[in-house]
Amino acid sequence: MSSSTAAPAAKPPMRDALVEAAFRLFLRHGYERTTVDDIVALAGVGRRSFFRYFPTKEDVVFPDHERCLADMTAFLAAGGPEHDPVRRVCDAARLVLRMYAENPAFSVQRYRLTRQVPGLRAYELSVVWRYERALAEYLRGRFAGRPDGTLRADVIATAVVAAHNNALRSWLRSGGTGDPGAAVDHALGYVQETFGRPAGAPAAPVWAGPVRDGEPAGRSGPDDVVVLVSRRDAPLWRMVQELETALGRA
Amino acid sequence: MSSSTAAPAAKPPMRDALVEAAFRLFLRHGYERTTVDDIVALAGVGRRSFFRYFPTKEDVVFPDHERCLADMTAFLAAGGPEHDPVRRVCDAARLVLRMYAENPAFSVQRYRLTRQVPGLRAYELSVVWRYERALAEYLRGRFAGRPDGTLRADVIATAVVAAHNNALRSWLRSGGTGDPGAAVDHALGYVQETFGRPAGAPAAPVWAGPVRDGEPAGRSGPDDVVVLVSRRDAPLWRMVQELETALGRA
Repeated sequence: MSSSTAAPAAKPPMRDALVEAAFRLFLRHGYERTTVDDIVALAGVGRRSFFRYFPTKEDVVFPDHERCLADMTAFLAAGGPEHDPVRRVCDAARLVLRMYAENPAFSVQRYRLTRQVPGLRAYELSVVWRYERALAEYLRGRFAGRPDGTLRADVIATAVVAAHNNALRSWLRSGGTGDPGAAVDHALGYVQETFGRPAGAPAAPVWAGPVRDGEPAGRSGPDDVVVLVSRRDAPLWRMVQELETALGRA
Repeated sequence: MSSSTAAPAAKPPMRDALVEAAFRLFLRHGYERTTVDDIVALAGVGRRSFFRYFPTKEDVVFPDHERCLADMTAFLAAGGPEHDPVRRVCDAARLVLRMYAENPAFSVQRYRLTRQVPGLRAYELSVVWRYERALAEYLRGRFAGRPDGTLRADVIATAVVAAHNNALRSWLRSGGTGDPGAAVDHALGYVQETFGRPAGAPAAPVWAGPVRDGEPAGRSGPDDVVVLVSRRDAPLWRMVQELETALGRA
């Protein structure tokens, strides 16, 4: 994760107390049967204090997503043209992982609760959608004026979130033991490989073209072959582009 | 679209009358201010008839998604091992397009309504999520036992839906004029190119490896180069895999 990310803001103790009381009651009595009155009674505060922090009962289940979304937006806005855009959105997704990994026990409890309560599932989908939009907006800016810019932005943003969530959910289902970082890195690596270019690899391939019966490499046989010759440090996507052109599949 | 897709089931006239009445009132008075009582009064039927077809007022806004989801699930289940999995999920997504394109005026009205009403936006996200899950479940089956099978399934499923929706929403924003099929084909083509292999191209590349100073193709220069020699009919993903291995990036 980049060191340019802001440190998490200090959380007021009353807010923490409300979240803790809410989850204690959700686990004991279930989400639906717990009222805001029950929560404030256990936390020892008034109803107005609850609603100062959480507009609805659902919001207390996801207390850190607003902060995380703000961090993500700030992180993306701080990026310059020197940052590879696909890598940047992968790094932005790691902010979400960090939030979950900060408190594994709480994250696992919430995950289980969200599986059980359809209203919370819907809420979570809206949060996921907002993360996707934040990444897509950034990519749309970076890809502005390029062919298929909005298409690529939308597809890559959802792919990043899907990869992140695939690894995150495996970790949550396993009970939140161990470090989820390696699995998320692996998942995001798949997305970067698929869509991105390796950092600092600006060079283009040298040549790609069709040949018959493998002239350049001494191949013989009945089939047409294709040969790609490229600098090793060229980005993979450029090599693939050259291959596609040579194959007439572009 | 495959001809194996079932024709749309005949819709009972009362159901159509309820949808028509609902949209007339939503456009005139707004979604929030229209009650189920208003809708049944205009359609000339009883409340029980409404709830026979639509569990909630939200459901009348998306009357065809259940049928479309069922069609999609059946279409995917009818696929065999001879179907390229990425192509299959792209074709499945075209079922959603067909539903929208069947009635452009209605689709555009609904799109505008959904932008304005947060509750409908949330409902739509849950529908999109169910399409994604249907595609992902199919791909998880097809990729079972392969490395990163669930990761690739989840990422490709969301990428297909994002690409489809990027093209669909452009069409809806433009007022639903013209045929959205070409734009959706183009968007899904991008996903197929990124993740898929060309149909009927089972052959593997012949050889890929690093060379110094371009020996095989007569290149000279200070940089390391990489050469890929492959049958033209090899799938692109195999060529890329070979390249990655040769480059040490796999």
